[in-house]
Amino acid sequence: MSRIGVALVGYGTIGSGVIEILQNEQELIRKRTGLDIELLYVADKDLTTPRRVAVKSAKMVSDYREVLKDPDVNIVIELVGGVGFANTLVEDCLKSGKNVVTANKALLAEKGAPLFRLAKENGLAIGFEASVCGGIPIIRIITDALAGDRIHSIHGIVNGTTNYILTKMYEENLDFDTALKQAQKLGFAEADPTLDIGGGDAAHKITILAGIAFNTAVGYAQVSAEGITGIDLADVKNAREFGYVLKLLAIAKCDPDGTVEVRVSPTLVPLDNQLANVRNEFNAVLINSEYLTNSMYFGRGAGSRPTASAVVADIVDIAKFKDAAHRTSKFIQFNEFPVKSMGEIESRYYVRFNVFDQPGVLSKISGIFGKYNISIASVIQEERSENDYVPLLMTTHSAKEKNMIAALDEIQKLDFCRQRGVLIRII
Amino acid sequence: MSRIGVALVGYGTIGSGVIEILQNEQELIRKRTGLDIELLYVADKDLTTPRRVAVKSAKMVSDYREVLKDPDVNIVIELVGGVGFANTLVEDCLKSGKNVVTANKALLAEKGAPLFRLAKENGLAIGFEASVCGGIPIIRIITDALAGDRIHSIHGIVNGTTNYILTKMYEENLDFDTALKQAQKLGFAEADPTLDIGGGDAAHKITILAGIAFNTAVGYAQVSAEGITGIDLADVKNAREFGYVLKLLAIAKCDPDGTVEVRVSPTLVPLDNQLANVRNEFNAVLINSEYLTNSMYFGRGAGSRPTASAVVADIVDIAKFKDAAHRTSKFIQFNEFPVKSMGEIESRYYVRFNVFDQPGVLSKISGIFGKYNISIASVIQEERSENDYVPLLMTTHSAKEKNMIAALDEIQKLDFCRQRGVLIRII
Repeated sequence: MSRIGVALVGYGTIGSGVIEILQNEQELIRKRTGLDIELLYVADKDLTTPRRVAVKSAKMVSDYREVLKDPDVNIVIELVGGVGFANTLVEDCLKSGKNVVTANKALLAEKGAPLFRLAKENGLAIGFEASVCGGIPIIRIITDALAGDRIHSIHGIVNGTTNYILTKMYEENLDFDTALKQAQKLGFAEADPTLDIGGGDAAHKITILAGIAFNTAVGYAQVSAEGITGIDLADVKNAREFGYVLKLLAIAKCDPDGTVEVRVSPTLVPLDNQLANVRNEFNAVLINSEYLTNSMYFGRGAGSRPTASAVVADIVDIAKFKDAAHRTSKFIQFNEFPVKSMGEIESRYYVRFNVFDQPGVLSKISGIFGKYNISIASVIQEERSENDYVPLLMTTHSAKEKNMIAALDEIQKLDFCRQRGVLIRII
Repeated sequence: MSRIGVALVGYGTIGSGVIEILQNEQELIRKRTGLDIELLYVADKDLTTPRRVAVKSAKMVSDYREVLKDPDVNIVIELVGGVGFANTLVEDCLKSGKNVVTANKALLAEKGAPLFRLAKENGLAIGFEASVCGGIPIIRIITDALAGDRIHSIHGIVNGTTNYILTKMYEENLDFDTALKQAQKLGFAEADPTLDIGGGDAAHKITILAGIAFNTAVGYAQVSAEGITGIDLADVKNAREFGYVLKLLAIAKCDPDGTVEVRVSPTLVPLDNQLANVRNEFNAVLINSEYLTNSMYFGRGAGSRPTASAVVADIVDIAKFKDAAHRTSKFIQFNEFPVKSMGEIESRYYVRFNVFDQPGVLSKISGIFGKYNISIASVIQEERSENDYVPLLMTTHSAKEKNMIAALDEIQKLDFCRQRGVLIRII
């Protein structure tokens, strides 16, 4: 029987879940793995506020540095969040010979590379299954299950808040603001939802996934994050007419020439795509790889217990192979793939123009598209009586983004156009 | 750099895929893991028939025992299939100090327990990711990602052939025979499809999954395998009216009292269930667990390259931790949970009667259901002019299977019943 000491720093929602599992399932884990995982410390500035789960026997400390001095602590679980204090904490752990398990996507996306380097130098592991889609074991699927496979692309619904909002818009015709309020009421959105609806949260996650999938360090600053703020219900409804559902996708692709595309975009997904059926607060990640071809992984993206389950899986993993800890590094970088600028990506597009209904409109617009080498796939022109301006909807075949932008710039100047065309990418 | 010698026994479809990956991706695997995985031998009785992938540098032998003598061989890949010769082969490997990777579901489902014991005694590992849904890393998800979680139930579409047939019946109104012929023509069904359509293949897979999920040895003989032979297109269409799609599900459940339910049944799945959207030859496994709650894993169930990818992932896993091989055993048994008999299971049901349309029919049938404590959820009685007998469709709330059987026995005897009611379980 191998005894593994664990310390938890950050006694919040996820922390409570971790304590719950470690306390309730110690015996189950022991039987399954032969490992006696013992929660030795819980560290938090606030030790008095009651939490969902009470600590049974671990020592409560307010300064995490106490934990680092104890040689019985093998793994520190970082659940404080943020990229400032958490960064210091993780560095201190690694310098003190402690393995780290973290759910901190922002930290790894923005400052991951030096931390992984530090871990490697010290022969230690960083477990981060919980940092991306807590309820989906996507990190180990990429690093372990696909160890001999080549991933071509990842398309993920990795943010539960935005997926909840978009589901309500699509299924119940709620406008964005109403759907957001409902999500907040039900606890699926924060009081300040900026990071979720602005796409930043999803961008953190796809930065991490792209890095491990393509064995390259992706600079978070190079990842384009477009959120769903300002999505018009009209476009959600129009998309349905074309046979699509609007999802916020986190996308990572690797071209054969060794350039990568990493971005977060509101995207139209055909109804027969597996991602189209991922509803409400659920997450899913669709992977296309050379040998496995298409596989998809579906589950809860967040929540105390699912995320805690991922943390515990990492603890078990590190504990099992603690004598070979340098081998458990999940982030191995040997490529230096440049990230494509948005202008260089290629996609199919949906465009909504608002045009004055006069002869020659379609001919002029399609002429400009043709000039930029953009080929039109379908057109719906709606007739409306109460308004002189009518929506003109188009979908295109695959085109270069910078050409689309240039075409929209030019079309916008035409006198029958009321405003700039609304552009949404199609998967 | 750690050098790992691998020998492959069985140069067939999957074998070709394994050779392809090991030959083409040796460098990728080396960079990712620091392991130099070298294919040293390919053993097969037939060394002359050309295959999809040619062997580059491995030694070709017709007798696998030659492989066992070579101390450089660390892992033997068993891809011969069947439960006779393959069993001897795996035993010989383990006795000769070789780790084993296998895609052989029949062998593990029917004779797994003694093989895992033998592996443990010799400090060796058996990797079997490829034995269940090659394109879905479901084994490591259960054993690793859910290491600290309690699985309550598994519902899987684990047979591509039957899922293809049922998809065609549902979407194109083909009858069973026509859909089967189409599947055979496209290579999704064998010339002798018995093992697939009879449910045996799915039963092998769920036997393995239940064993690792509940840490109990499930006797294959105790697993009820009902296939899709004889499924009437009428029931597929009727199910659609009720909002269901018919799927062949492999089901494993663990009751809190420590009894397990392990079976393969044609099952009606509500359209908003994630499994309902798994179409054609694809597979998926839905897991309900205490902490992760619902998660689903989707991909190809079979095929040369997906299955080979799973084999290679196991090779990498064993190679990575070869100095701790006893820790990589994926089947740890410490429970002895009895398997429920089919009479004891509980389910919701769909029933189709063929009744002479006379007053009092519904009252008599519902009276008998009531007597057996079965409560009716919905009724559709169709009117047809060309026939005196009409279909009477019912769905029930959850009931005990033995009560349903007894009720159908009794209803069958009523003079307005043309034949025994057709019974299909609802998820």
